[in-house]
Amino acid sequence: MQTLYSMQRSGNSYKVRLALAQLGVPYRLVEVDILKGESHTPEFLQMNPNGQVPLLEVAPGRHIAESNAILWYVAGGTPLAPENRIDRAEALQWMFFEQHSLEPNLGAAYFWLVLVKGGRELQRHAFEEWMEEGYRSLRVMENHLKRNDYFAAGRYTIADIALYAYTHLAHLSDYDLGTFPAIRDWLDRVAAQPGHVPMDLQPTVLEVAQ
Amino acid sequence: MQTLYSMQRSGNSYKVRLALAQLGVPYRLVEVDILKGESHTPEFLQMNPNGQVPLLEVAPGRHIAESNAILWYVAGGTPLAPENRIDRAEALQWMFFEQHSLEPNLGAAYFWLVLVKGGRELQRHAFEEWMEEGYRSLRVMENHLKRNDYFAAGRYTIADIALYAYTHLAHLSDYDLGTFPAIRDWLDRVAAQPGHVPMDLQPTVLEVAQ
Repeated sequence: MQTLYSMQRSGNSYKVRLALAQLGVPYRLVEVDILKGESHTPEFLQMNPNGQVPLLEVAPGRHIAESNAILWYVAGGTPLAPENRIDRAEALQWMFFEQHSLEPNLGAAYFWLVLVKGGRELQRHAFEEWMEEGYRSLRVMENHLKRNDYFAAGRYTIADIALYAYTHLAHLSDYDLGTFPAIRDWLDRVAAQPGHVPMDLQPTVLEVAQ
Repeated sequence: MQTLYSMQRSGNSYKVRLALAQLGVPYRLVEVDILKGESHTPEFLQMNPNGQVPLLEVAPGRHIAESNAILWYVAGGTPLAPENRIDRAEALQWMFFEQHSLEPNLGAAYFWLVLVKGGRELQRHAFEEWMEEGYRSLRVMENHLKRNDYFAAGRYTIADIALYAYTHLAHLSDYDLGTFPAIRDWLDRVAAQPGHVPMDLQPTVLEVAQ
């Protein structure tokens, strides 16, 4: 059985838990609290030198890092992962957009405003750029969703899972989605997918590690 | 013939030109100077609402953005793109690492210190973080390259192309690779690959657009 190192309140970790739940894949879950430095112990750095969760052990001693790469691994060969050359490229396009344009802003705002006590004050100089760049990225998504129900391949895929994670948390860190009706409709469509699990609940397939 | 919208001095654009040259794929090249706002004209935003190069037109009116997604598109079905499930995930892991941990630091430093006149002064507050986070990312790469010749699948792939682009420019923006011997050796191995083209020269297969 695969072991997933994850932090419950991490949007990047939630992506993988959501995909595994929807695919009905059982796994062993190890909670890693990055706020307590648990992703920077010598043991963890041995598994992922970049010191981040999520991390999936796919074979004894063999680990895959980076949430969106893990999504491709777990969803490979299922309808969630489009394998047609151009559909795959479009899904990847949105997943790289997510890690380069969306997550560094919405994810950073969520981390510092929601997870870290006093983070709003500590990061007040960066906050303006996260809002500005975050809204810019949301406008790119809104523009796409005005004409498309999903991000790639004309159906629900891991590109939607990747973008959903921090977008559905945006309201917790001051982003107002009031002027993004297409994004709000898409959030509802994603939440209505078969097997969807919310972020704050444990997927029922989990076997929690000791 | 495919059309590539590219900026000659952009590391992200260079990735695609390098892969196309090594694969011997002819293409039409359109130079887009982002410093002159050419990626934010109404015509360009119609093709890529995110306003970035590189951008590849793969069919009339159909475009793929994000350099690393384009690499998967152009290299699909060739040895440069590992398709085995775990090899693909490892290549993707490093390509997401590149866009999330390396390019936002080394790429930003290159852009502001090398391409923008007065950029060093304008961005002096951000520079320290780019250096610190950039060196942290280089250490992760060095650690991997101490035990591996390439980043994924045990051979030269598009993961190497993605990471090479800004790493081979690092010395231009104050990074000192003196304490990274494994990275320096890897840079030499990449530059010695068949069909390699340097960034500042036009690949010979190009047909430059009017």
